[in-house]
Amino acid sequence: MNETIPFLKHIAYQIRKSSIEMTSKAGSGHVTSSLSAADIIAALFFDVMHFDPDQFENPNNDRFILSKGHASPLLYAAWHELGKISDQELLSYRDFNSPLEGHPTFRFAYTEAATGSLGIGLSIGVGESLAARQTKRDFKTFVLLGDSEAAEGSVWEAVQLAVYYKLNNLIGIIDCNRLGQSTPTMEALEGDAPERFKKMFDAFGWQAEIVDGHDMDALVTTLQKAREADRPVMIIARTKKGYGVDLFEDKEGFHGKALNSEQEQEALAQLRERFADDEKFRSYPSTSSGRTGGPQRSFSELGKTGEIREKNKKDYQSVHPDSSKNSTVNASLSIPAVRPELVEGYERAYFSLPKPEYKKGDEVATRKVYGKALVALGNVCKEIVSLDAEVKNSTYAELFEKAYPDRFYQCFIAEQNMVSMGVGFDRRKLIPFISTFAAFFSRAHDQIRMAAVGRASLKLCGSHAGVSIGQDGPSQMGLEDIAMMRGLPDSIVLYPSDAVSAYRMVEAMANYHEGISYLRTTRMATPVIYDAQESFPVGGCKVLRESQDDRVLVIGAGVTLHEALKAHEELAKEGIVIAVIDLYCIKPLDVETILRLAKACNNQIITVEDHYMAGGIGEAVAAAVSEYGIKVYPLAVTHLPRSGTPEELLSDSGIDAQAIVRHVKKL
Amino acid sequence: MNETIPFLKHIAYQIRKSSIEMTSKAGSGHVTSSLSAADIIAALFFDVMHFDPDQFENPNNDRFILSKGHASPLLYAAWHELGKISDQELLSYRDFNSPLEGHPTFRFAYTEAATGSLGIGLSIGVGESLAARQTKRDFKTFVLLGDSEAAEGSVWEAVQLAVYYKLNNLIGIIDCNRLGQSTPTMEALEGDAPERFKKMFDAFGWQAEIVDGHDMDALVTTLQKAREADRPVMIIARTKKGYGVDLFEDKEGFHGKALNSEQEQEALAQLRERFADDEKFRSYPSTSSGRTGGPQRSFSELGKTGEIREKNKKDYQSVHPDSSKNSTVNASLSIPAVRPELVEGYERAYFSLPKPEYKKGDEVATRKVYGKALVALGNVCKEIVSLDAEVKNSTYAELFEKAYPDRFYQCFIAEQNMVSMGVGFDRRKLIPFISTFAAFFSRAHDQIRMAAVGRASLKLCGSHAGVSIGQDGPSQMGLEDIAMMRGLPDSIVLYPSDAVSAYRMVEAMANYHEGISYLRTTRMATPVIYDAQESFPVGGCKVLRESQDDRVLVIGAGVTLHEALKAHEELAKEGIVIAVIDLYCIKPLDVETILRLAKACNNQIITVEDHYMAGGIGEAVAAAVSEYGIKVYPLAVTHLPRSGTPEELLSDSGIDAQAIVRHVKKL
Repeated sequence: MNETIPFLKHIAYQIRKSSIEMTSKAGSGHVTSSLSAADIIAALFFDVMHFDPDQFENPNNDRFILSKGHASPLLYAAWHELGKISDQELLSYRDFNSPLEGHPTFRFAYTEAATGSLGIGLSIGVGESLAARQTKRDFKTFVLLGDSEAAEGSVWEAVQLAVYYKLNNLIGIIDCNRLGQSTPTMEALEGDAPERFKKMFDAFGWQAEIVDGHDMDALVTTLQKAREADRPVMIIARTKKGYGVDLFEDKEGFHGKALNSEQEQEALAQLRERFADDEKFRSYPSTSSGRTGGPQRSFSELGKTGEIREKNKKDYQSVHPDSSKNSTVNASLSIPAVRPELVEGYERAYFSLPKPEYKKGDEVATRKVYGKALVALGNVCKEIVSLDAEVKNSTYAELFEKAYPDRFYQCFIAEQNMVSMGVGFDRRKLIPFISTFAAFFSRAHDQIRMAAVGRASLKLCGSHAGVSIGQDGPSQMGLEDIAMMRGLPDSIVLYPSDAVSAYRMVEAMANYHEGISYLRTTRMATPVIYDAQESFPVGGCKVLRESQDDRVLVIGAGVTLHEALKAHEELAKEGIVIAVIDLYCIKPLDVETILRLAKACNNQIITVEDHYMAGGIGEAVAAAVSEYGIKVYPLAVTHLPRSGTPEELLSDSGIDAQAIVRHVKKL
Repeated sequence: MNETIPFLKHIAYQIRKSSIEMTSKAGSGHVTSSLSAADIIAALFFDVMHFDPDQFENPNNDRFILSKGHASPLLYAAWHELGKISDQELLSYRDFNSPLEGHPTFRFAYTEAATGSLGIGLSIGVGESLAARQTKRDFKTFVLLGDSEAAEGSVWEAVQLAVYYKLNNLIGIIDCNRLGQSTPTMEALEGDAPERFKKMFDAFGWQAEIVDGHDMDALVTTLQKAREADRPVMIIARTKKGYGVDLFEDKEGFHGKALNSEQEQEALAQLRERFADDEKFRSYPSTSSGRTGGPQRSFSELGKTGEIREKNKKDYQSVHPDSSKNSTVNASLSIPAVRPELVEGYERAYFSLPKPEYKKGDEVATRKVYGKALVALGNVCKEIVSLDAEVKNSTYAELFEKAYPDRFYQCFIAEQNMVSMGVGFDRRKLIPFISTFAAFFSRAHDQIRMAAVGRASLKLCGSHAGVSIGQDGPSQMGLEDIAMMRGLPDSIVLYPSDAVSAYRMVEAMANYHEGISYLRTTRMATPVIYDAQESFPVGGCKVLRESQDDRVLVIGAGVTLHEALKAHEELAKEGIVIAVIDLYCIKPLDVETILRLAKACNNQIITVEDHYMAGGIGEAVAAAVSEYGIKVYPLAVTHLPRSGTPEELLSDSGIDAQAIVRHVKKL
């Protein structure tokens, strides 16, 4: 008789046991959401998925994404079973010094993607599946979703695009346990939820299958079959929340509730009775260390995963060094914390672009330069891919598409899915440049935030920034993007004012790996002001006008830099001299240069930006130089703009040359 | 023979003509996207919808939402046909002084909701439909969508919730014209797009119908039938982009492209040939003013809308005064600009709450107070409704649900749809309080932004703010919400630190009508520090510690206020005295009080906040007081947090009492 099923049942028991122990010890965590999917996880990690636990980043490994991130105990329990986390370490769950966080983050090296905001995992899976195709790999991507999160529209964005790209290497599993945090799911409240989900996924073009999520045999058969499908597969697993423990099995009111010590003992006793006393199970006792052994006879009967697991038993040691960036991680834990490529000093190729071909005085839109620079970059770096949300002829991502059609991904008007797809590409070592209107990145704010939690190195380009887009009106104007992007840990925010700087900014993005890079581009053409050989280091700025008699320092960026230069010229006619800085890099801020100039300008700075006040350039500069006694006068957009010509709108918002002139004179 | 169909065809012709003239004059705008739906708009506005154009806000009127907002010429052309916009005024489209903006905003009084970011209209429609039910009205809500925007997940959020609430008063129409901005739609690229859409909507539980969108007879029949359905209806109209003009009909490359004057003449000639020369049409000539007349015989044959239209012809005058807030609107335009309730001085009831029942020293979580205050408010104001995204037991919206089950709307985990639903409720004069975790409002950032463009008076409550939530980790921590909410034009941002202030903030939100109100609540219980009779005016702050010898002013809010008070106590032991302000209202900022205190504190301020630096309290204060030579030292979260205890995390982020003490001593 095949030993696989009893073995997997044993693993599922162990995962349930660990989930209860971890959450009880922590005093918090989502145990019921873990118990419903323990069988699925056992089947995936110990039979269905092909991967080498010793080489997590092996490019041929199948990938697993825990979209229902609150069920993190499942992930940690699985890696415990795989021998990468000791019993002791498992109980560090949710401790400050442990990488086993409440929801999985990059601080646990075996996290494929940080999750915890729901409805994101399937999009990451779409990215991974496309990356597999791009890199000509056979691996499959598995995504475990909750049923409640199917309410998130981003799931349906991913569903649509997966069909468009005919992803036969993407397999989703819905842990259809009927109960959300505070209420049954929409689908469960009327009719049979799995049948309703099946209809929905089928209609969109997926292959949908319903399976009993606690029947290991059926689970394995269905999952194995899914590997052979000619289209994306969604397996809808009928499960019970809290399965295995009477106290909360299939009951409302227990979401995210940990057990107290008495309840824990009772629950563990029930588990033993209900699962461990199975006759077949008796032949698979736990080892003395508490970590499970496999079948008594031979692992090889269990196939590849079994073999790998045996090998793992011989080497529990961490293969990756701790991240120097996370120095507070308790050294007594052997859990590999942080993926190797996030550790400082990790070596990467540097991508250099040839000299740009722009001449001073030419009029070029920086958004167009984005497209051109991306083409140049695509030539020196084969890992570059371009994603765009159905505005490629506005963002100029279409130039990249024309040059490298097989590396361009049309993502249609679904910004959330596009951004999380980028996370998938990034995890598979491709370099995603992602473009849409600056305003519409707000649609994916949560996904961008979560990408930052996962330390994904996305390169985002937002075009059509500010009121200067003109007639299309406020719905199309990016006026909060600087604040949004500055607010991401480890991000850089770049805002070129001319073609040469825009070109170099794109190059800088390709070479920034510590977090998200953001490039803000402008709709209208602006004059080239830099020599082609000029360089633009990240964290710098350019002093464009400086003299002995400067009365005030004006800081502009993008369109407003040109307004500042115009103001300089007009004021000069009246004998008033000002210094002007091009703040092409908004984050990190070149405080040193700004301070030096400001001190020579009577400690006075006027900032001017085509962006709302909150979190913009003015506030960034004011907060940075405040302690030095520098006075900052921020000019920014302070009321809702409207349709009109760019000139009318810059004037109406008080951020044009005339407004600068007025303010300088007032000082 | 019934005259309706030829009359509607005539109107469709006029709408096409106007769309071409408006966009050609403006030199920009989406003419092809308008031409595909001209027949639909004619059918809706002149036959299918029941409404009184003279009383736009009549509570029995059917409502129309233009989800594909870029087709704004349709909306303006329809109201031109209804006699509310003159020929001359129509040509002011996209001018700075015209309310006829590129995408519809609240500045045109007949805009039901500002649109222009795609995929939002259906959610607003769900809100309107639920409001109809709530207010016991029979009106129907019609939403016109584009086919490209079906890629937006928010559409599918609305689709799911409409089924859950069995909305038989919501009718969507997809203008299925095959072509997006830069590419055919996903659905059009393989198979028959309308059939694919029909399957998708049917599977979700809608009644889906396919109709030829240029066959007026079929359109009217299908739309009329939809009024009688027992569930939400989606009509999928097969249309051609640019229908009626050879140059661009059904062709790629013409999205958002206006015609030059030669092309315009050619296009208008084609229109006349193709539509106006229809024999039936000849009996409906244009009037001398260029505005269309109706059938020669009698409007009454056309039913209610025809009658109304005849009446309109007698009175083109604006019924609403121009908004004083938009004083630059050209007075020569008679187009009613801005809805009456947005005009300054518009009278409203004031909602007062009884005195709160909290005692100083009690420990209460402000999130719980939100729920309790909402219950009290529900008692004095029957228009209050509560919306929550499946976290009602965390945000405490469940208290409102228990008290008023018929005014609570479970929105499930679909924050985008929830926020836009709120816009629908707001438009129908209900007062929506919308709650979820602060972090997850980032999911609806674009919808919130668009609500602000539409001047919707949403009341948003974000719970679980900051690192102080503890073990759940960074994915659940709201750390960018202050920046996001401050960045909205006309918003107010409130952040109470105790129960009494939280209670009064909820009352303040109910009475703020100029824009979005945001309340930030805290997971953990905090001590009550205010007397029950204390009041908290919007735009104020509380000076809690003040003496003659203050060395520095510390500004806290929410949890960090309590850290500031602890720091005050500790420092006092060492003879160091500091002033402390509770910044319960972050926007608008009480600059006057802050300045007065700061000047008495050696011009030194330390701000401390459980939020990222970008766009937070520190930057807001620094920018506001910079010109007065005050030095601001902002303490905020500057790196990605993790799981841990609240105390560990406040300490790790450098925003606890110890951090404040250290900084005060450094100064």
